[in-house]
Parts: sequence; C-alpha cells; structure tokens
Amino acid sequence: MALIGQQTLNHQLSLFNDLISPVSVAVIGASPDRTKIGNAVLENLVNQGFKGKIYPVNPSYEEILKIKCYPDILSVPGKVDLAVIALPAKIAPTVLEQCVKKEVSFVIIVAGGFSELGDEGRKLELSLKDKLKGTKTRLIGPNTVGVLFPHSNVNTALTPGDRIWFPKEGHIGFISQSGALGLLVMDAISGNGTGISGFVNIGNRADVDEEDLMEMFLDHEETKSIVAYLESIANGERFFKTLRRVNMEKPVVILKTGRTRESSAAASFHTGAMASDDRVMNGVLRQMGVVRAYNEVELIDFGKAFAYALPLQGKRIAVLTTAGGVGVLTTDLLTEENERPSLAMAKFSDEEIAELKKHALPIASLNNPIDLTADGSTEAYAAILEILSGSDNVDGIIAYALPQTPKIDSSVVQHIITASKKKTTIVGIIGNRLTQDLMLEFEKNLIPAYPSIERTVASMKALYLRNTYMRRIVHEQ
Amino acid sequence: MALIGQQTLNHQLSLFNDLISPVSVAVIGASPDRTKIGNAVLENLVNQGFKGKIYPVNPSYEEILKIKCYPDILSVPGKVDLAVIALPAKIAPTVLEQCVKKEVSFVIIVAGGFSELGDEGRKLELSLKDKLKGTKTRLIGPNTVGVLFPHSNVNTALTPGDRIWFPKEGHIGFISQSGALGLLVMDAISGNGTGISGFVNIGNRADVDEEDLMEMFLDHEETKSIVAYLESIANGERFFKTLRRVNMEKPVVILKTGRTRESSAAASFHTGAMASDDRVMNGVLRQMGVVRAYNEVELIDFGKAFAYALPLQGKRIAVLTTAGGVGVLTTDLLTEENERPSLAMAKFSDEEIAELKKHALPIASLNNPIDLTADGSTEAYAAILEILSGSDNVDGIIAYALPQTPKIDSSVVQHIITASKKKTTIVGIIGNRLTQDLMLEFEKNLIPAYPSIERTVASMKALYLRNTYMRRIVHEQ
Repeated sequence: MALIGQQTLNHQLSLFNDLISPVSVAVIGASPDRTKIGNAVLENLVNQGFKGKIYPVNPSYEEILKIKCYPDILSVPGKVDLAVIALPAKIAPTVLEQCVKKEVSFVIIVAGGFSELGDEGRKLELSLKDKLKGTKTRLIGPNTVGVLFPHSNVNTALTPGDRIWFPKEGHIGFISQSGALGLLVMDAISGNGTGISGFVNIGNRADVDEEDLMEMFLDHEETKSIVAYLESIANGERFFKTLRRVNMEKPVVILKTGRTRESSAAASFHTGAMASDDRVMNGVLRQMGVVRAYNEVELIDFGKAFAYALPLQGKRIAVLTTAGGVGVLTTDLLTEENERPSLAMAKFSDEEIAELKKHALPIASLNNPIDLTADGSTEAYAAILEILSGSDNVDGIIAYALPQTPKIDSSVVQHIITASKKKTTIVGIIGNRLTQDLMLEFEKNLIPAYPSIERTVASMKALYLRNTYMRRIVHEQ
Repeated sequence: MALIGQQTLNHQLSLFNDLISPVSVAVIGASPDRTKIGNAVLENLVNQGFKGKIYPVNPSYEEILKIKCYPDILSVPGKVDLAVIALPAKIAPTVLEQCVKKEVSFVIIVAGGFSELGDEGRKLELSLKDKLKGTKTRLIGPNTVGVLFPHSNVNTALTPGDRIWFPKEGHIGFISQSGALGLLVMDAISGNGTGISGFVNIGNRADVDEEDLMEMFLDHEETKSIVAYLESIANGERFFKTLRRVNMEKPVVILKTGRTRESSAAASFHTGAMASDDRVMNGVLRQMGVVRAYNEVELIDFGKAFAYALPLQGKRIAVLTTAGGVGVLTTDLLTEENERPSLAMAKFSDEEIAELKKHALPIASLNNPIDLTADGSTEAYAAILEILSGSDNVDGIIAYALPQTPKIDSSVVQHIITASKKKTTIVGIIGNRLTQDLMLEFEKNLIPAYPSIERTVASMKALYLRNTYMRRIVHEQ
C-alpha cells in the first residue's frame, strides 16, 4: 500500500501541481467593471496575495487593476499554468481551444449553460470535451465557482471578496459539486478560523472529477483529511475504487445528497445528473470505511476532527466539564445509539479515582463525566486532564472549555494541547464573547473544537466510526 | 379552556408578579469583594438597569457600590419582594427564617451543599422546607444560579457580567434544572440577539418547581413559548397534568436528559434526583403533544420557532434559495424520516408555475426547491415570496437569506417579514460577516432564522410535530 501511495504521489504531484501551486494565472474575460465575474476573479487573485504572474486577458483594455492586459491567451508571453475563462458559455469552446493551443495546464470555465440546461447545453459541453482530447490540458467545470488554494494564495472564486470571507490555509481538502454551497460553507467556517488546504468546485465535471481531486488531495502534503459534497457520482465503479484506496491513507468524509426520492429529483434539476439509490450508497460507503456526514456542518466538523485529532482507538470516553448539565447532556448523546453508534463512558480504576480526588474540590463529581463545578480551577482542570490523557482506561477525552467561570482562564488551551498530543481529544465550547477567542486559539493550534454539545459528541463518534471501519478492513485483508 | 386560562391568569399574576417584576430586591450577603458571589449578584442587578429599590444586606458595610447597606433583612425598610441569599448553606435556614418573618415574597438561595450532597444536605434542605410551611414566602433553589427577567431588568445571576452575555428581552420562557447549562446557553444565544422573557434555574427545587414555573410563564404575557431543560421530574403525575394543560395554550419544548442508563446515573450525581424510564417519558410527551428537543441548541431553536412563527397547518413546504446545493440538501433533510417525521415538498399549480416564471431568470429552477441561482435578484426573490405566501398549495416556507451574491440586498429581510405574516416562514442563513447583521435583523423582527440547513429544517419539523399533535388531541376531545 505504502509503495503504491509513493508512486501515486510522484505521478500526481507533477500532474496537479500547476493547479495547486501555479506560477502563472490568466483571467480570460478580466474586466474593470465591478459587476462582472471577470472582475471578481481577478480581484480575488490579486487581493488574496497571489505571488505568481497574473495575466488579465481582454481585447478592450490595455491594463486592468494596473496589470498589463492581453488581447487573447495566445498573446500572453511564456507558460500559463492556470487560465480562468470568465466568458459566456457560447464562446467557451473557442477560447478553450486557444488555451489548448497555448498548452495551458489547467483551464477553469466559470459559465453555466451546459449539460445542466438540457440537450443543447449537453452538445456544447461535448464540444468542450472534444477540444481536450489527446491534449495535456485539464478542465475544471464548466459551471464552477472556481478553486481556492490558500497555501499558494490561489483564489479564483467568482464572488467578490467584500461579500464573503475565504478560509485561511489549513488541512482540510474540500471538494464540492455545488459551487454556492461550497462558498457559503467556506464563508461560515472562516468566522471560527477554520482553514482549508484547498477547495475545488467540480461543477459539471466535463473533465476533472471527484476521483481526480481525491487523488490530488491524497498526494497533497498539506491535506490531512478530504471532505466532499456530492449530489451524484459520475462513474460508480471508478469512484468507489478510488475512494476506498484514498480513504485507507487519508480520511474522507462524504456528504451525499439525493438521499430521498424528492431530493434526488432536486439534484437532477440542479446539476443535471441522476442520483443513485441511497441504500446502496450507504452500504458501500460503510464497506469502504468512509464516514458519512448528513449536513454541511457535519461535513467540515468531521473533516476537522480527522485532520486534527489522533485516531480514536476504542470507545471509552472520559468527559471533563465545569458545568454539570453539560456533562449529563454529553453522556446522553454519547451513550445513545442513533444513526451513529453509542460510545461508552470510561471507568476509572480505584487508583485513578484516588489520584483525581487529590485535585478536585470535595463537591466535584469524579464519576465520569467529571464535573469540577463552577468552582473548578484551571490548575485542577490541568491536573485532571493529565491523569485522563495518561490513563489506560480512556480512549478519548471530551474536554469542555468554558471560560465563563472566574477560576478558569485561557491557559486551559495550553493544557488541552498537551493532553491532545497523548490522547484523542475533542473540545466543546458553549458561549459567545469569551468563547470566540478561545475557538480561534484552538483552531490555530489544530485542536478540534465545536460550539455545541451535539457537534462535539458527533465528531467523537465520527472518529470512532472510522476506527471500527478501519479495524474491520485491516482484519479482512 | 379559555375560561380556566383566564382564572389561572389572575391568580398566577398576583402570585408570581413579585418575582417577575419586583419593586424591591434585597441581596443578602452582598459584598464589595469582586471574587464573591454576593458581589456578582448585586452588580448584575445594578448593571442590568433594575429600576426598583435595591437593598444590599451585610452587617460589615455601611454601603456597597454606593448603595446603602443594611445589617440584616429585618432592618430593611418597607416591603421586600425578592431576596437573594448569597451566603453559605449552613446559615441559609436561619436567614430564610428572617426572610419569612419579613414576609419577603420570593427568596433565592444560591448556595449548593444541600440534597445533591447526600443525607446531611438533605436534612439541611428539609429544614428550609420547614421554615416555609404555612407562610406565603416562596423559595427558588437552593443550589441555583438565579433568575433573569429582562423586561423588568431583573438579573440575579451569580456569574459576573464581564464573563457572560445576558439575553435581551424576548418571548421565550426558559426553565433550567442545571444552572451552568442555562447560563452558557443564554451566553450563546445572546450573540445572535435572541431574547428571553425570563429564566429560572430551579436548582434543587425545594419549593418552586418546574410546574410552578410553567404556570407562571403560561400567564406571563410576554412569554410566547416555554422551554425547559430537565434531568428529572419531581412529581410525575403533577408534572404531566400541568404540562398538558400549559402546552395546550403555549407551546412547551422539553429537553429531558437521563435518556440512557449512563446519563441517568450522571444526572443523579449532578442534582441528586433519579431519572425516569425514557421510553415512558417519550410516549407520554408525545401523547401530551409536547415537542422534545435532544440538545441545548434545539431547545432554543424550537422555542424560537414556536414563539415567532405562525403555526404550521400542514406538511407541504416550499423552499426558496439562491444556492442550488442548499436547496438539494434542504430537500434531503425535509423529506427524510429520522427521529422526526418527513415533510412534503409543496407542488405548485400550473397557474402558479406560470406566475413564478414571470419573475425568475430562464436558468432558475422553478421546481420546488426554487433556485433563483446566484443571478437571482432581490426583486425576483420578493415577487416569488409573495406568490408562495399566497399559495393554497403551500403550508410553510423555508426562505434562505444568502446575501453573499451581489444582487441580493438586505431588503430581503423586509420581504420575508411580509411573507411571514401570511404564511409560516422559517429562514436559513449560512455564512459569516454579512449574515451576522442579517441574523440580528431577523431576531429584532421576530423571524425565526437559523445558521445551518439542519437547524432550519429541524425547526420546521418541530412546528409540524406540534401541529399534528394538537390536531389529534383536539380531535380526541
């Protein structure tokens, strides 16, 4: 397996490097008009600090945003790694042909109006495919909002940067069949400081599809987990084969919609692709050892857990809190069996309980969940975390960081970081003003932290699911 | 029913008025020492702008926070409506006795160290009950973080105001058996501008219990829905009788933990009360027509839906979005059956579709979900909302307010307000910077808005659940 991984690595790196980390990017249809997509794409590229060459292409201008403008892609000097075509669908095939002639490595076609709009559009999309045949040029889209690679400051998003926040560099590779959903989710997670290693909206995937991108992220060093929003699968056999192989090395989380008859119909109107039977999908994903998310929040939550936390080796969870009710509710959700399995409350040895008692006030509850109460101090919290993270009776820790009580200060972050290096740790946070800073601090330190009890518990369950899947798969081999 | 409601109203208003809207509040154990609870309680009362008389009580000071201080409660001149005892458990019975003698209407005992700590504590708690016998004084607690009534600026919370945000005045009555969980949840919802009509942490409920408070909120005009976090029920028969009656007039949402064996044990360590069998609880709540929340986020989400939205009269939902993937995922979650029932996608008549077509761009999808695409304008959005809110084929609307696309501006809020007066409307929002202002705007206008697809859909399902319950109950009568 490792050998195959290595071979793939070298192969893919050379293949997708011009997309992930291009030296030169052209924006065809660039415009100074702020209502045009060709303006937003160029502005995002410039404003997000892309350090390579930027070539606006538009025959009507000498320069745009003070950058020299070219009449067509063939006039651009030297190699172009990535070209974004921000022009109407009808002329896209002609412009793509020029890009192929220029030997552009990757082309992004933003416009919709292809296969998602019926027969005529399908013909137009086929003509795009024809232009690519026998060439080395790869196409993203059409009908895509673009790509984002924060490590190399590549941002070709079609949404103006004053309307949206883009995530900073991180470790989650994000593939989305829906462009708008992808942009909205990235906007949402940016508020908590969650970063991504890359984002690609596959759109109508006339060429580059979800399998290519899973391979790409597998071989991308910064990517620690891969999350994908899919409404349909282009090629079932190839998809599952790739998914299985990729997921063995890097955790993949799939949010597959079209689970009901009604939403399957909605998906076909949206992207023109027909969805498969969801029971089949469910069974196959389980067999592949792939964890499924059921909504856009879980998708990133689980991606974060997989990217940041140590793998969870068993189901015995210790819960540490300074708020009793939070511990009770956590126990409820951890030990119930819903669409995910129930986990177990870790049982401490007598020696451990004696040790725990040394640090907690007499009113504290040392049964699991451990409730230090509102009088719990940072020192007690730290000492107990150390015991838990060293315990053979504990597989994972849910640590609530609740800075609202006066004796808990922000140094709990440091203690949680220490614990999380020894034992799988997920952090729960509930609140507002004080917790916001804490959340950013946890993100900066790559500690998976969540602003609700349910999300905290669900993410621990996702880690457990992957662990049981992987054990079974390894056992079967 | 209406007549009984009216009788209860007059009765209860006189009874609980001194708690909800006191003219004079004493803080016994008030302190200038910022590490003391007696300081936090006094400061919160002063800083939240309580307009009545405030009496600090402490024999060691002439004044605290520049307010005249009294040596004991009996020395305070005139009537005291509400007294907070912020002193250790051991001396609480003696001080309570003084409050009874003073004919204080409501006493809050903050200290823990009673029945939750075993036999000795139970005895101490019994002595509190003894002091109340045959008197008109009512006790909240012991072991309580206090109460909040924003409409009258009453805030006796034990957490310093620089550690937490308190909600503004609103329409959700919040009962919590756990103090810490209650405070954390209030901190969290304040960030989105969600208000409450009142909060009471019942603590060990030596006297005032969840039933009393449901009655209180039933008769409190500002309260439109009641949400309760409970780990155990004090008196099953009385609880269910009260709940059934209250819920017929004002929607009640129950978050009852101790659902599993493990969490039931955790709850008994936390509040000393034993939890009941959860299957029984589930069946009875359903029979009572009471909607259940499964976590702290749903508790307030559903409370908000019930307090703000028109009742949902059927299961046919129209979904309006400018992001295709959001529509597909919404359809998925709406039409799936999980712990809550599946709803139906509304089907429009031919006339309605013709009407819808007049307003949307040709690329828009007018099947339900209606996807106006990123090119959808505020005008199209408004026109279509008007059609949906007037349609006999639609029971409820899920409207996504996504201001990230350039043609959608903040005036969508106004159009959604208009629609929500005609038809049950729930708003979904995904994002960060731009959406935060929109969320506050929706809250200000009492439109239920949620920052995730799952929460949006779950809240619509909660409305539907109540509708089916109520229909059945009315039918049975």
